[in-house]
Amino acid sequence: MKKLLNDPAQAVDESVEGFGLAHADLVEVRTDPLFVVRRQRPPHGTVAVVSGGGAGHEPLHAGFVGEGMLDAAVPGAVFTSPTPDQVGAAFVAADAGGGVLAIVKNYTGDVLNFETAAELADAEGVTVRTVLVHDDVAVEDSLYTAGRRGVGGTVMVEKIAGAAAARGDDLDAVAALAERASAAVRSMGVALHAPTVPHVGRPSFDLADDEIEIGIGIHGEPGRHRIPMASADEITKMLVEPVADDLGLANGEKVLLFVNGMGGTPPSELYVVYRAARRLLEERGVTVERSLVGSYVTSLEMQGCSVTVMRLDDELTGLWDAPVHTPALRW
Amino acid sequence: MKKLLNDPAQAVDESVEGFGLAHADLVEVRTDPLFVVRRQRPPHGTVAVVSGGGAGHEPLHAGFVGEGMLDAAVPGAVFTSPTPDQVGAAFVAADAGGGVLAIVKNYTGDVLNFETAAELADAEGVTVRTVLVHDDVAVEDSLYTAGRRGVGGTVMVEKIAGAAAARGDDLDAVAALAERASAAVRSMGVALHAPTVPHVGRPSFDLADDEIEIGIGIHGEPGRHRIPMASADEITKMLVEPVADDLGLANGEKVLLFVNGMGGTPPSELYVVYRAARRLLEERGVTVERSLVGSYVTSLEMQGCSVTVMRLDDELTGLWDAPVHTPALRW
Repeated sequence: MKKLLNDPAQAVDESVEGFGLAHADLVEVRTDPLFVVRRQRPPHGTVAVVSGGGAGHEPLHAGFVGEGMLDAAVPGAVFTSPTPDQVGAAFVAADAGGGVLAIVKNYTGDVLNFETAAELADAEGVTVRTVLVHDDVAVEDSLYTAGRRGVGGTVMVEKIAGAAAARGDDLDAVAALAERASAAVRSMGVALHAPTVPHVGRPSFDLADDEIEIGIGIHGEPGRHRIPMASADEITKMLVEPVADDLGLANGEKVLLFVNGMGGTPPSELYVVYRAARRLLEERGVTVERSLVGSYVTSLEMQGCSVTVMRLDDELTGLWDAPVHTPALRW
Repeated sequence: MKKLLNDPAQAVDESVEGFGLAHADLVEVRTDPLFVVRRQRPPHGTVAVVSGGGAGHEPLHAGFVGEGMLDAAVPGAVFTSPTPDQVGAAFVAADAGGGVLAIVKNYTGDVLNFETAAELADAEGVTVRTVLVHDDVAVEDSLYTAGRRGVGGTVMVEKIAGAAAARGDDLDAVAALAERASAAVRSMGVALHAPTVPHVGRPSFDLADDEIEIGIGIHGEPGRHRIPMASADEITKMLVEPVADDLGLANGEKVLLFVNGMGGTPPSELYVVYRAARRLLEERGVTVERSLVGSYVTSLEMQGCSVTVMRLDDELTGLWDAPVHTPALRW
């Protein structure tokens, strides 16, 4: 295993420390327990939006802490849920008097630990509402999940909720919009090469030299099928069609198209996939109104990508377009 | 070879086409010959800043086309200089009546082709001045270079020149600031795994499972030495010290620190390197005033990173901070 790390047991702490130093204008890193909180507090009464999950998916979630997106993010160990005391401390620190919206990717450990954390926060007088992201159409139930997994669509749900909070919506309204975003978004991914978890030291799964896995999870959970290596256009079709079918996209609809790199895939390849995905959507009479291309929800250095599509309406488009100023997303 | 591509011979065209579709608000892709130009033209008389080089280093250069940075970018084939007619056409298209500053990474093919292109543009009445970037301290002369190679520091030179042009500086002034930025910046990189050029189909060089190459070039050109795999802190020291020594950084100086991913390295590792680099600079009494962490000058899916340090003064800091709105860099 060759990685730019020191002691694997310290990798998350050291990485988050470096992240905090590099982005000290936007975020503050707290330790004991570890979480990242926005440096500039929003006005009193604003809803705080908080997310978190296992490390190894950077820039998700800490990269989205800042104006117009997350107020705090909680990294666990690599591919491991953060503990309830971490999450609870982040809820309490982020609360600005308007309550907390927690955005949770649908993994059993995350769901349970965020639930316990909400009880801890409630005991300190902080109200927490939770919205689940479960956008991965590849499989029902999985290695760490009952129901569908939360993957790339998390970026959209976090952006929409953060924009709603920033414009002053109350907790019910922010939660309702996050639910609407979550209901409007679907994803599917593919792996070309497996990642290696630092403290494990060997690839998370085996893929032959000419084999890829369609429907892969962001922790290397099994997908739908392994197939021989295919062209970008063919692979993209295997991702876009299940997503568009599951969304029930009809002629004349407008969408946001997000092509996400899994960590080890260069941008040049993501744009080849974007080109193919866009053509497939346009063939269905669907208009791509907004786009995002880049590695935002990664799986360490895994090679591969995911395609996320969100059905847009005027309000979701407006919230997507609203200003955001975070380390990883800014406009 | 597993890559998200169709016909390798079409990879650059398809990728740039996807890029143009995803960022149609900012850029326009021209074909025959291929280049990328800013969609919104600057005011008449503004200096145009143009760069380019072999593909495979994305988001460099096309990702930096937009307000406050580049007016046009010219991608060659993978790791291959763009042709003089491509570059010349970009010069002519980008010129807004104030002349063109060309920023050229110091590779012999690029230098020659940009020179010929400047003559072509001159024949059409467009004045071109050229600034070379040669920030890589690893080696003098190399596989494709006489003198030092141009690597990560290119981002800084392009940003500084673009900001100077945007505030209305004339061609002499923009060229002088680009030269100052180029003289103030140094870099050095490391490779953990080699990339594979699509139309070649096998890794660009061989590295053993426990071996890394210090001082690697962004086309896989040989560096200073191969050593056994080491810790992030040790590796970072081997990059930062030659850079800081070559710059002659003294106690009390201020710098910009840029930790760049080579394409296949996840952000979490880059922040571990950033943390180590920052400590080393601080031990010398150097203050890190500005930071950039991410994969901006890549080598396809190569795993590794580079460290770039630019000596700052008030004017360079102001130009770095000036607004930029491009697909890959925005504030």
